Amino acid sequence: MATTFNRIVLASRPTGPVTPDNFRLESVTAPDLADGQVLVRHHYLSLDPYMRGRMNDSRSYAQPQPLDETMIGGTVGEVVESRNSHFKAGDKVVGMGGWAEYAVVDASQRGVLQKVDTTHIPLSAYLGAVGMPGVTGWYGLTQICEPKAGETVVVSAASGAVGGAVGQLAKARGCRAVGIAGGPDKCRYVVEELGFDACIDYKTHSDGKALNKALKEAAPNGIDCYFENVGGWIMDTVLLRMNAFGRIAVCGMIAGYNGEPLPMANPALILVSRLKMQGFIVSEHMEKWPEALKELGTLVATGKLKYRETVSQGLASAPEAFMGLLKGANFGKQLVKLI
Amino acid sequence: MATTFNRIVLASRPTGPVTPDNFRLESVTAPDLADGQVLVRHHYLSLDPYMRGRMNDSRSYAQPQPLDETMIGGTVGEVVESRNSHFKAGDKVVGMGGWAEYAVVDASQRGVLQKVDTTHIPLSAYLGAVGMPGVTGWYGLTQICEPKAGETVVVSAASGAVGGAVGQLAKARGCRAVGIAGGPDKCRYVVEELGFDACIDYKTHSDGKALNKALKEAAPNGIDCYFENVGGWIMDTVLLRMNAFGRIAVCGMIAGYNGEPLPMANPALILVSRLKMQGFIVSEHMEKWPEALKELGTLVATGKLKYRETVSQGLASAPEAFMGLLKGANFGKQLVKLI
Repeated sequence: MATTFNRIVLASRPTGPVTPDNFRLESVTAPDLADGQVLVRHHYLSLDPYMRGRMNDSRSYAQPQPLDETMIGGTVGEVVESRNSHFKAGDKVVGMGGWAEYAVVDASQRGVLQKVDTTHIPLSAYLGAVGMPGVTGWYGLTQICEPKAGETVVVSAASGAVGGAVGQLAKARGCRAVGIAGGPDKCRYVVEELGFDACIDYKTHSDGKALNKALKEAAPNGIDCYFENVGGWIMDTVLLRMNAFGRIAVCGMIAGYNGEPLPMANPALILVSRLKMQGFIVSEHMEKWPEALKELGTLVATGKLKYRETVSQGLASAPEAFMGLLKGANFGKQLVKLI
Repeated sequence: MATTFNRIVLASRPTGPVTPDNFRLESVTAPDLADGQVLVRHHYLSLDPYMRGRMNDSRSYAQPQPLDETMIGGTVGEVVESRNSHFKAGDKVVGMGGWAEYAVVDASQRGVLQKVDTTHIPLSAYLGAVGMPGVTGWYGLTQICEPKAGETVVVSAASGAVGGAVGQLAKARGCRAVGIAGGPDKCRYVVEELGFDACIDYKTHSDGKALNKALKEAAPNGIDCYFENVGGWIMDTVLLRMNAFGRIAVCGMIAGYNGEPLPMANPALILVSRLKMQGFIVSEHMEKWPEALKELGTLVATGKLKYRETVSQGLASAPEAFMGLLKGANFGKQLVKLI
């Protein structure tokens, strides 16, 4: 009884902004399961900024997404058929099934599929606050920034899945948390719902001078830790306000309009302020995931770590939702609901 | 019996390149010693790039050099008179006496004056390989770069007092050491006398493309550690060849011709290559000096750590020697001999 389902493949690489033509929806039939394999029906698909980089064919930290293959992506769902003794039909699982309604997973490979408990934590949260974005925030904050109580932590893209976790984890450690986000709605959410001490709207403080002034007010004792999700002129401005011995976790950096590198205006500040600046990719630190997920899961289950989701409906909506994500149209974690 | 001696004060702050007019030689008389004070006759004065920054009246990690006061600087010499029970006439000492033939030192303040042993180590070495420059190289290499045997360490300004120590300490740790220096004489010295594996002359590889090619040949397995003494286009080029998880100790960064910041071309490499980049100032890590000086002193006393000195004669020669240092005219540690 073969399962036929829809998937989205990368049809072409973008030259400039991503367009719907870069994707192709197609119907495929799942092969019969081999020993060790399971068939997973996806409930939610995660859309994340890193996918944009994979669509290029350039040197980066990860292999490019192959053309004509299912777009990469995190997924949560339910096992519907299993030829693996560790999984049975009905198990809720998180994996990397990609932009598809179903996936055949070789579950005997360690780490590719994880059973999750949905008693106290919603299934979708395993793609956000208790998943890769949450662990990304946790890792950069706790392993690179290492904030002490009383210090000031600034995070860009603060209303997003990563940034929201960073600020709330910083608050839980006794820090002052200051967000940077785009627009009054996001800033209000960051302060009123997520509990940050302040949030700066970079759209109304849209140059270095205005942002610098706003940072001076929001972080009157200077900035000890910066969680970098964007780069460019926002990074340049935050650097000016870093305290001596500040730490910067580099999680994301945008490129210029045509993909060219955006320079850093004044790298000598790294010396003048004795800063530590460190880039990281959370999937390279799997040894830390259990510790991170334990803290994040407990906080979500007890309602102490809040998050928001933007959910688009149906696989076919994924390309448009993804293009919206790249423009900042989402609010919190961007998901595609498949069931 | 009052001692009259010469000193050099900062007469004016430079606007652009340093000129002789920025300094003034004058004669002063030492006051009678108070309790706890000693009078030191300087044998050598150290000239160092950091002094240029102090001549400005701008925000940096240190206080500006005050006008009309003795120029700051490290010194070695001999106690000639003492009202401090820990020092007696004839003791050889290292301190921060400044650009002067003598200094009255309140030696009861901890750390301002250190007795040194000249049995196996020349007195002048306490201003170089067994002093601030040596410890600077040691700290950046061992505490920030943390190289492992088999890794490749690149250092700019490799023939200088700091860079030379970095490469030799890296070799002692089983690393491949690659220097960058200006001119064939300096490069030959770095390889033949200091024992680096390779040295690149940035004057004959004078743009990013040429330097990149030379680095590819000199560091065929990529670069794991970079000790940064210069910044600018050399840093931009080295960054392109850093391996994943590379470490960069930032010790020095030049500014542009008119003092404006020089940008970093592609900071996204910090993320793409998951680099750690950290600025430091060795005087803020006094707790590590004993460990560093022990290793450096042993290596110098046993002839395993080599260095070169450029010595100008007499206090009046200090301004010109300093201007030469800023242009790279010195070869190894720049000193002024006062006796």
